[in-house]
Amino acid sequence: MNGGIQEGDQSVSLDLLKHKMAHFAKERNWDHFHSPRNLLLALVGEVGELSEIFQWKGEVPKGLPDWKEEEKVHLGEELSDVLLYLVRLSDICGIDLGKAALRKAELNAIKYPASKKNNPNANNGISITESG
Amino acid sequence: MNGGIQEGDQSVSLDLLKHKMAHFAKERNWDHFHSPRNLLLALVGEVGELSEIFQWKGEVPKGLPDWKEEEKVHLGEELSDVLLYLVRLSDICGIDLGKAALRKAELNAIKYPASKKNNPNANNGISITESG
Amino acid sequence: MNGGIQEGDQSVSLDLLKHKMAHFAKERNWDHFHSPRNLLLALVGEVGELSEIFQWKGEVPKGLPDWKEEEKVHLGEELSDVLLYLVRLSDICGIDLGKAALRKAELNAIKYPASKKNNPNANNGISITESG
Amino acid sequence: MNGGIQEGDQSVSLDLLKHKMAHFAKERNWDHFHSPRNLLLALVGEVGELSEIFQWKGEVPKGLPDWKEEEKVHLGEELSDVLLYLVRLSDICGIDLGKAALRKAELNAIKYPASKKNNPNANNGISITESG
Repeated sequence: MNGGIQEGDQSVSLDLLKHKMAHFAKERNWDHFHSPRNLLLALVGEVGELSEIFQWKGEVPKGLPDWKEEEKVHLGEELSDVLLYLVRLSDICGIDLGKAALRKAELNAIKYPASKKNNPNANNGISITESG
Repeated sequence: MNGGIQEGDQSVSLDLLKHKMAHFAKERNWDHFHSPRNLLLALVGEVGELSEIFQWKGEVPKGLPDWKEEEKVHLGEELSDVLLYLVRLSDICGIDLGKAALRKAELNAIKYPASKKNNPNANNGISITESG
Repeated sequence: MNGGIQEGDQSVSLDLLKHKMAHFAKERNWDHFHSPRNLLLALVGEVGELSEIFQWKGEVPKGLPDWKEEEKVHLGEELSDVLLYLVRLSDICGIDLGKAALRKAELNAIKYPASKKNNPNANNGISITESG
Repeated sequence: MNGGIQEGDQSVSLDLLKHKMAHFAKERNWDHFHSPRNLLLALVGEVGELSEIFQWKGEVPKGLPDWKEEEKVHLGEELSDVLLYLVRLSDICGIDLGKAALRKAELNAIKYPASKKNNPNANNGISITESG
C-alpha cells in the first residue's frame, strides 16, 4: 500500500504520507476532486478547525499542561489534517515538499544569522520563514 | 546539528524538520517567541501567502504546466513555510505529528470506505480529512 | 438595543453591527473572552468554514446559478460570521472599521490608477487591496 | 461615484462599500478577475496579513495601549482589506451581506440565550457565531 516505503519505528517521512494520500484518493476515485485550488481551500478549512481549538483559550503554555487527553488527541487530528492536505497539494503541484523545506530552512538560517540574535518583530524580518 | 538523523538521498522525515526548527530557534534565542498561539498565527500568515500565489489565477491544472520556474520555486517556499511552522507548532504542543498523521490517515480510510466511491461533497463527509 | 441606530429599509451600517456585537457579548458576560487574539482566531475559524463551502466545487460562476437555496443560506451565514467577528475585532482594537475601509478604498484607487488597466497579477500589485 | 448613497458623518454602510468595490473593479476592467474563488483566496491572503500583525506579540490587551500610531494605521488597513474582499465576495455571490448579518446575529442570540451565561468553550457551542 505504501510503495515499499518502510513504516514502523522510523520517523515518518513526507514521502510516506504522499504515497498514502495518493493511494487514498485513487482507491476512492477522488483524483478529479484533488485540483490545486480545491486542495488549497480544503487546507484553509483545516487551518480554520485548528484555530477553533485555540480561539477562546487566551495564551496557552508550551506542552499544553492543562489540556485533557481528548483535547490533545483532537489537536493532533487537526494538525494532521493540515499536514495531509499540504502534502497532497504539494504532490499535485509537482513540488517535492521535503526537498523544498530543507532548502527553505537553509535560506532562513542565512537570512537570520544566529549571531545577530534578531528579534522576529524587528524590521529585518517580520516572519521567521518569510520568503524572498 | 540534526541529532544524528540522516539526510541525503532518503526521504525527508518530520523528525528531521522538527530538530532543524528547534535548533534554529535555540541558536537565535527565539524559544520565548515560539508559544503555541504565536506559531499558529504565523502559520495562518503563511497560509495567506500561499493563497496569494493562487488568488487571481482561476482554476489551475495539476502539475502547473504553464507556471514559470520562478513561480514554482516561490510556491515551494510558501508550502515549506507552512510545513515548518506546522512542525514547530506540533513540537511545542507536545504532539508527535508523524504518528498523529499516520493515525489520522487510517481513520480517514475507515470513515470513507474505498468500496463506496464516496463523493466528498455528499453528506457523509464534506471534508476528506474531517475529524471525528 | 442598538443605541438608537436605525434599522429597516436602510442599508446596514458597520456601526449597527458593532453595537449589536457589543450588546451580545455584554448580555452574556463574554467580554473577557473577546480579547484581540481570541477574536482573530475565531475569525480564522470562520474563514475556514467559508472555505469549506467552496473547497470541492472547482471554479464557481458569479451569482452561483446552480446552488440550492439552502446552500446560499449557509453561505450567507458563513460570510456573516466572518463579518461579525471582523467588526468585533476592530471594535475591541479601537479601530473605526468603516472609516478605515473608506480610507483604504481611496488608497487602492490611487495605487491602481483606472487609466492604466492594471493586471492584478502583474508586478505593480499582486493584491488589489495590498497595503502600503 | 457611489450611486447616490450618502457618505459623510453617517456610519459607513455595507452597501456603500459594495458600490465602491463594484465601481473600482469596473473602472479597471477587473470584473473577470473577481470570480468567487479568486476573491475567497484573496480574502484568505488578507487574513494572513492581518494575522502577521499579531503573530509574535503574545496576548494583546484591548484597545492596544502600547501600539504605535503607525501600527494601528497598518492594522486598520488590513482589517479593511479583509472587509473589502468580504463585501465584494458577497456581492459577486449574490448575497445581501447586511441582511444576512442581521439575520445571523438574531440566530446567535437565540442559540446562546443571554440568561444561560454560556461559556463559549462549552459543548453547547464552541463558536459564538457557529452556524446551524
